[in-house]
Amino acid sequence: MTDERLEIPYTVADYLLDRLAEAGVRHLFGVPGDFTLAFLDHVQRHPLIEWVGCANELGAAYAADGYGRMHGLGALSTTFGVGELSAIGAIAGSYAEHVPVLHVVGAPTTATQAAGRATHHTLGDGDFGHFARMTAEVTVDQARLTAAGYSAEIDRVIVAARDRRLPGYLIVPADVSEAPAEPPRQALPQHPAITDPDVVDRFRQAVAARLAAARSVAVLADILVSRMSAEDSLRGLLRLGVPHATLLWGRRVVDESAEAYLGSYLGAASDGAVQTVIEDSDVLVMVGVQFTDLTSGFFSQRIDSARTIEIRGEYATVGGERFEPLAMSAALHAVTSAVREEAEHLQLIPTGAAHRPEDQPRVEVEDEPLGQAALWSEVTRFLRPGDTVLADQGTSFYGMAGHRLPHDVTFVGQPLWAAIGFTLPALLGAALARPDRRPVLLIGDGAAQLTIGELGTLLRHRIPAVIVIVDNAGYTVERAIHGLEEEYNDIARWDWTALVRAMDSEQTATGVRVATHEGLRDALDAARGSESLTLIQAVVPPLDVPPVLRALGAAAANANRPLDR
Amino acid sequence: MTDERLEIPYTVADYLLDRLAEAGVRHLFGVPGDFTLAFLDHVQRHPLIEWVGCANELGAAYAADGYGRMHGLGALSTTFGVGELSAIGAIAGSYAEHVPVLHVVGAPTTATQAAGRATHHTLGDGDFGHFARMTAEVTVDQARLTAAGYSAEIDRVIVAARDRRLPGYLIVPADVSEAPAEPPRQALPQHPAITDPDVVDRFRQAVAARLAAARSVAVLADILVSRMSAEDSLRGLLRLGVPHATLLWGRRVVDESAEAYLGSYLGAASDGAVQTVIEDSDVLVMVGVQFTDLTSGFFSQRIDSARTIEIRGEYATVGGERFEPLAMSAALHAVTSAVREEAEHLQLIPTGAAHRPEDQPRVEVEDEPLGQAALWSEVTRFLRPGDTVLADQGTSFYGMAGHRLPHDVTFVGQPLWAAIGFTLPALLGAALARPDRRPVLLIGDGAAQLTIGELGTLLRHRIPAVIVIVDNAGYTVERAIHGLEEEYNDIARWDWTALVRAMDSEQTATGVRVATHEGLRDALDAARGSESLTLIQAVVPPLDVPPVLRALGAAAANANRPLDR
Repeated sequence: MTDERLEIPYTVADYLLDRLAEAGVRHLFGVPGDFTLAFLDHVQRHPLIEWVGCANELGAAYAADGYGRMHGLGALSTTFGVGELSAIGAIAGSYAEHVPVLHVVGAPTTATQAAGRATHHTLGDGDFGHFARMTAEVTVDQARLTAAGYSAEIDRVIVAARDRRLPGYLIVPADVSEAPAEPPRQALPQHPAITDPDVVDRFRQAVAARLAAARSVAVLADILVSRMSAEDSLRGLLRLGVPHATLLWGRRVVDESAEAYLGSYLGAASDGAVQTVIEDSDVLVMVGVQFTDLTSGFFSQRIDSARTIEIRGEYATVGGERFEPLAMSAALHAVTSAVREEAEHLQLIPTGAAHRPEDQPRVEVEDEPLGQAALWSEVTRFLRPGDTVLADQGTSFYGMAGHRLPHDVTFVGQPLWAAIGFTLPALLGAALARPDRRPVLLIGDGAAQLTIGELGTLLRHRIPAVIVIVDNAGYTVERAIHGLEEEYNDIARWDWTALVRAMDSEQTATGVRVATHEGLRDALDAARGSESLTLIQAVVPPLDVPPVLRALGAAAANANRPLDR
Repeated sequence: MTDERLEIPYTVADYLLDRLAEAGVRHLFGVPGDFTLAFLDHVQRHPLIEWVGCANELGAAYAADGYGRMHGLGALSTTFGVGELSAIGAIAGSYAEHVPVLHVVGAPTTATQAAGRATHHTLGDGDFGHFARMTAEVTVDQARLTAAGYSAEIDRVIVAARDRRLPGYLIVPADVSEAPAEPPRQALPQHPAITDPDVVDRFRQAVAARLAAARSVAVLADILVSRMSAEDSLRGLLRLGVPHATLLWGRRVVDESAEAYLGSYLGAASDGAVQTVIEDSDVLVMVGVQFTDLTSGFFSQRIDSARTIEIRGEYATVGGERFEPLAMSAALHAVTSAVREEAEHLQLIPTGAAHRPEDQPRVEVEDEPLGQAALWSEVTRFLRPGDTVLADQGTSFYGMAGHRLPHDVTFVGQPLWAAIGFTLPALLGAALARPDRRPVLLIGDGAAQLTIGELGTLLRHRIPAVIVIVDNAGYTVERAIHGLEEEYNDIARWDWTALVRAMDSEQTATGVRVATHEGLRDALDAARGSESLTLIQAVVPPLDVPPVLRALGAAAANANRPLDR
C-alpha cells in the first residue's frame, strides 16, 4: 500500500481491486461509464492494476477472456445495461470455453435503484434486475454488492470464477463502491484438494491391470486439461513416449514438437494414421476431452469405452468403472506410474530430439499468387518457440490444423463458442498477460471487421504483435458450408494497411499487402526483425479453402439440413 | 411473386419474409452464420427485401433500430448464441426507447437441439434455451418457430412488435426455415381501435370545462407521441397556436420552426422562459411524456397534476380524473376541438411565417480555433428542411439542445438507453429507410470508436451522409460528470480522414479535418454540394462542454454519490 493510498479512505472498490490483484489480475479492461467513474478512480490509484480502456465493451470482454486464458483470471469493468449487455456475448463465450473472467458492472446507487425511476441505461420500467437475470444464464456465480456483505460476496464470486474456470459477475452500485471497507485479513481460500488416497490406489491398480494386458497405449487430450491446470501432470505422462493426439480445441495442452505427438484427432476427418492409433490402441487414455461438433467431425469419433481410461476434472473411469473423487492431476500421476512400470511391453516412442518445424528446409518459390496452402506453411515456418498464436475460427484455425507447432507455442482458438472476430481483442489480453511471448494473430478479413476497433487499442498500447489478415473478400468459412458464391458472404472491402496508419497515432507500426508467396515470405522476414506491430494483408482467392475446413463445411451443411429431405 | 419463386418450394422462410415485407420491411440487416445461410438464400430471392450485411451484429441491430424509428418496423438476422448475444444490447435499447424491431435468429435444427450435444455457438451444456430466456427480458414477444405452428407464431410476434412499438424475437431452426409452407391467405390484423365514444365525449367535456376557466394553455409533448403514431393529431392541435415544448427525447414529434414552439423543457435545467410557460400555464396538456433522469434534469420537473391534462397511449387524465379506454389520437382530437372553441380567451400564438434557422444572417468569423459553441451553431445553420439528424448521446445531443431545427427535420437521439456509438449504425438504417432525406450524423470520437465497423457499411452502400466527428480525444460527456482530466476518459487517437480512405474501396467519399471555425464552415459548404459521404473531423478542446451538459453532468455526478456523504 502506497503512502498516497493511506491518506484516502479505503473503500469497497479497494477491497475488490486488492482481491483481483491477489488472484493475479494486473490489467483491467473496459469502457468507462458514469456509473463506473468513481470506481475507476480507485483503479487509477491501485499500485498493481492497470486500466486498459478499449474501443468497445465486446472488445474489452474478449480481451479479458484472452487474458484469462493465459493468466488465471481476466477482469473487465463496464457500465450498467448498455455496457454490460454489449459484453455479454463474450461472457457467454468465456462460459462455453471454460475461461475465468470477472465482469464488474458499475450500477446506479442503491437509492436510485430503490426509487425505481426511469434512469438512463435501464429499460425505464423501474426493474433493475433484468440484466442480472440475463447474466445468470452465462456465469457461474453472481452478486450485487452491499456495503454490509461486500467481503463475503466478492470472495465467493472471485473464488468460483478462479477455481471453476468460468465467468463471474459482480454488480457494484456507485454508492457501495465508495462505502468504507476493511482490507482483507487473510488470503483467498485455496482450491480444496478433493482426491481420496484410497480411490487413487484403486484407480492405479485398475489402470495397471489394463496396461499389463495391453501392447499399445495412446493418449487423447483436450482443453479441460488446461482448465484443471493439469498440463504439467499430462506432460509427465507424455514424456514417457506415449503416442498422443489432441482435439483441435486442446492443442495448447501438449508440446507438438515432441516425437510422440501424432497430430490432431477429428474423428472421421482425422489424418488416417492419427485415427488408427487413437481408435485402435489396446488402451486409450482420454484426458479432459469434450467432443464438440466442430472438433469431432460432427461427432464422428469412434471411441470404444471398454478400452478407454477416461480422466475428467473430478473423477476417472476405467472401462466404464468410475473412481471418485479423483482430481485430474492425481489420476495422471497414477497413470504415469503405471505406464512406467509396464513400459517394456508397450509400444512407446522414445523422446529424441524434438521436432523443430522452423528448421525445415526453405523451399525456393516463384513469384506465384498466394493461396491458403502456402499461407499456412509459411506462417508455421515463421513461428518460433514460446509464441502465443491466436487463430480465428475460420480458415485461420482450420488452415493451421495440419501444421505442427514449435515447442512451447500456446495456440488459442475458440471452436465451441466459435465467435468470429474474437481473437483480435483476445490478442490484446493475451499479449498483456504474457509480455514475454511474441503475440501472433491469424484472422480473416470478415472476422476482423467484427472487432476492428481494438486494432486501435493494440496500437495505442504498442503491442508488438504480428497480425496476418486473410483477405479473401468475405466469410470463406461460411462459403465452405453454404452459399459459395452468394452475395451475403461478401463483405465491405477495406485497405487494411491504410487502416493501420489511420489508427496508429505514433506511426511506428507497419502495414503491408501481399498477394504472392514470395511477398508473404518477405513480409514475414521483415516482421521477424520488427519491434512494433506488423499487419500483413495476405490476399488469397475467395474460394480457396483449407482441406480440413472443406470436409467440416460439408458436414456442417449436412447437420443444418432437415432430416426428411 | 416472380416466376423464379414459383419454381422453388415455398417455405416457412418465405412466409416470414412475406409478412415482414407486409409490415413495411424492405431492408434486412445482419451478419451471416452457418445456421442462417439457408434462410439468407430466401432473402436473396425475395422481390421486396434487400440484405444489408453489416460489420458486426451490434451494428446490424442498431441499424435495424434506426430503420424502425423511421419506417414502422426494423428487422435483423443473426446466428444463434454468438450472433444474437452481440446484438442483445441494441435490442434492449429498442425496448427502452420503444422501437419496433424484429430479431430473427437462425438456430440449429430441431433434431440437433433435441440431441442436446455440444454444438458450436452453444454453451456446450445441451441447454438450447439460455439465449431465449435472456432475450425474453428485453422483448415484447418471442417464439421458437415450428413447422406446424409457424404462421400463428410469426403473425403474433410481428403484430406485437409493430403495434406495441417494441422488439420481438423469432428463433428459426434451420430445418423449420426450409419446411413447406402456405403463403398468407389474409392480411396481418390491423391494430384494433380501443376508444369508447362515450369516454371521448366525457373527456371532451372535462377538457372544455377546464379551458373555459383558463386564460393560458400550453402543451408538453414527448417521444410516446411517435410511438402511438399520433404526430399528425398533435400537429393539428399545435397549429392552433398553442405554446409548446418537448422533452429532448421527443424533439421529433413537433415542428421546431413553428412560431408557437418554445424550446426544450428539461425541468430545472430549462431555459427560464420555457420553464415558466410549461410550469405556470393555467392548463398544461402533457402528451406522451415519460420523464427520465437525463431529460428532466434528474427529475427536477415541477408539474402540478391538478392543472394538467395528461394524454397517454390508452387513457387520459384531467386533473387526476381518468378516462379510459381512450387512444392518444382521439384524445388529441378532442382537445383540439375544445381549444378551438375556447380560442378567443386563450393566449395563443397565431401561426405566422415559420421560423427558418437556415436563413439566419451568416456572421463573419476570424480563423479562430473551433469550440463547441461555434460547432453547433454552424451545424444548425447547415441543416435544411427534411434532413434526418442523428445526435449521439454525448456533447452532440446536448450541444444541439439549445438550437432550433428547421421545418420537418427528424431528430433522433437515445437519451434513455443512452448507448454511446448507437447513432453511427443507426444512421445506416435511418438512411435506407428514408432515402428521400439527407442523413446527418453528429457523434463524438469516443462514441464512434465503439461502432466504427459500420462506417465501412455506410461507404459500401454509398450512403450520401454528412458525418461530423467531434474530435476531443475522449469521452467528454463522462468528463462532464466525473474525472475531468483522468486518463480513463482518454481514448486512442485516430486519423478519421485516413480511416474514411481505408474503408472506402470506391474512393468517392471525402474526409476532412478542421480545427477552426472558418475551416468548419468551408467543410460544411463543400458537403452541401456533395453527392457522396463526407466525414468532417472537427477538432475541439477536450474540456469544452456544451452548457446544458455542464449542468446535467453535475446532477449526474450528484446522483451517483452515496446519500450519507
